[in-house]
Amino acid sequence: MKNYVVIGCGRFGSSVAKTLYSLGHEVLAIDKNEEKVQNIAEQVTHAVEADCTDENVLRSLGIRNFDVAVISIGSDIQSSIMATLIAKELGVHYVLCKAQNELQAKVLYKIGADRVVFPERDMGIRVAHNLVSQNVLEYIELDPHYSIAEIVAPSKWIGKTIGTLDLRANYGINVMAVKHGMQINISPEADDVLKPGDILVVIGKNEQINKVEERG
Amino acid sequence: MKNYVVIGCGRFGSSVAKTLYSLGHEVLAIDKNEEKVQNIAEQVTHAVEADCTDENVLRSLGIRNFDVAVISIGSDIQSSIMATLIAKELGVHYVLCKAQNELQAKVLYKIGADRVVFPERDMGIRVAHNLVSQNVLEYIELDPHYSIAEIVAPSKWIGKTIGTLDLRANYGINVMAVKHGMQINISPEADDVLKPGDILVVIGKNEQINKVEERG
Ligand SMILES: Nc1ncnc2c1ncn2[C@@H]1O[C@H](COP(=O)(O)OP(=O)(O)OP(=O)(O)O)[C@@H](O)[C@H]1O
Ligand SMILES: Nc1ncnc2c1ncn2[C@@H]1O[C@H](COP(=O)(O)OP(=O)(O)OP(=O)(O)O)[C@@H](O)[C@H]1O
Ligand SMILES: [Ca+2]
Ligand SMILES: [Ca+2]
Ligand SMILES: [Ca+2]
Ligand SMILES: [Ca+2]
Repeated sequence: MKNYVVIGCGRFGSSVAKTLYSLGHEVLAIDKNEEKVQNIAEQVTHAVEADCTDENVLRSLGIRNFDVAVISIGSDIQSSIMATLIAKELGVHYVLCKAQNELQAKVLYKIGADRVVFPERDMGIRVAHNLVSQNVLEYIELDPHYSIAEIVAPSKWIGKTIGTLDLRANYGINVMAVKHGMQINISPEADDVLKPGDILVVIGKNEQINKVEERG
Repeated sequence: MKNYVVIGCGRFGSSVAKTLYSLGHEVLAIDKNEEKVQNIAEQVTHAVEADCTDENVLRSLGIRNFDVAVISIGSDIQSSIMATLIAKELGVHYVLCKAQNELQAKVLYKIGADRVVFPERDMGIRVAHNLVSQNVLEYIELDPHYSIAEIVAPSKWIGKTIGTLDLRANYGINVMAVKHGMQINISPEADDVLKPGDILVVIGKNEQINKVEERG
């Protein structure tokens, strides 16, 4: 178990805080807005109304004792910078910040941030890829050419076995798992028959995955 | 090639618009804020300053001719509702909306949205999982129990073959791909030796994946 402090409880920050808490970790949530603090209070270990640009406040909250700080203020870069500086100065080992763009990220890395993320940008890229191939549900880019994707089994494949379809030879993709409703099979075999509603978790080149829609 | 209209060019919407355009599609970007329109103009097909709650404006922009509308206004649910209603009424086949919470999503689905997404919440969940297992780089939740994750090969595994490690038996995870620098091997074999810096793409139960860090 680790100690996390989440500063800024907007949509991103509160989701990080609640998830960490649900995974069994100690979470202190801080926001300068009273309503935000109230909304999250029951879903974290402690929630406190405070302004993170005030070093004395952060010091008195014992920030130095936390393993990780998540600074999730996307639209006030001044506050993010101050919070990052103070957290690092107080000795927090790992500081993750939310930023709006690469320029802000550069500044945050310079003053000591260990990782900077762009939640809206990254999810925008992901959603755009999913839109382009509408039977692709979820999507991880492994590198610029290869991805893992969840695809709805095209109707032409239904009733056939994974072996018969030979997706490796015919489409250049490997099937790693098959989801059906609440069930998931992470070791699909050649004689498994695809059923309507099956979702295939595949790995392959982006262009090959995208072709499944047209060719399937 | 498809036609996409993106309404609301905040961080999420502009990322969707730019990505779709970069993938070779026709993209009309709309925002009521002039600065947002100027910032995106060069990275989409057309960018227009307009208020999406005005049906006549959307009609005159030829919204009916678009295959997909992305309504990416997270903090003004009234505008999202209006834009969704108008887009569906004008005959747009597929409408994807950004929302803040499940309640808003319910309303948007009721009035015709085809998909509702929560970019900040989803990325918050993803980042929290990554923080908990710091050698997990990327992460797809397949269902509440199983995930695909990219993990840095723990130092104890370096120099050993995938066959010797028998990750299936010893950790309950399957290795689907191995990344090394710019190279990616999507058909790892039992006698492949793990090198420093290798990143393994694995599938398995969340708790098993998280254990790799401690046990590795
Ligand atoms: N100096 C500060 N001290 C403490 N909390 C702050 C400070 N400045 C901003 N916040 C809080 O940070 C939270 C997130 O900020 P904001 O809403 O501006 O970012 P955002 O990136 O747009 O959020 P979202 O994740 O919802 O998209 C807000 O709840 C705000 O009250
Ligand atoms: N009625 C409207 N017509 C056109 N554009 C609008 C309308 N209402 C809001 N917008 C635009 O939508 C964009 C996104 O809205 P907003 O910033 O409130 O959402 P957000 O979810 O916080 O964004 P982000 O993706 O940056 O986190 C803004 O650029 C805003 O100008
Ligand atoms: Ca509490
Ligand atoms: Ca946001
Ligand atoms: Ca396999
Ligand atoms: Ca242009």
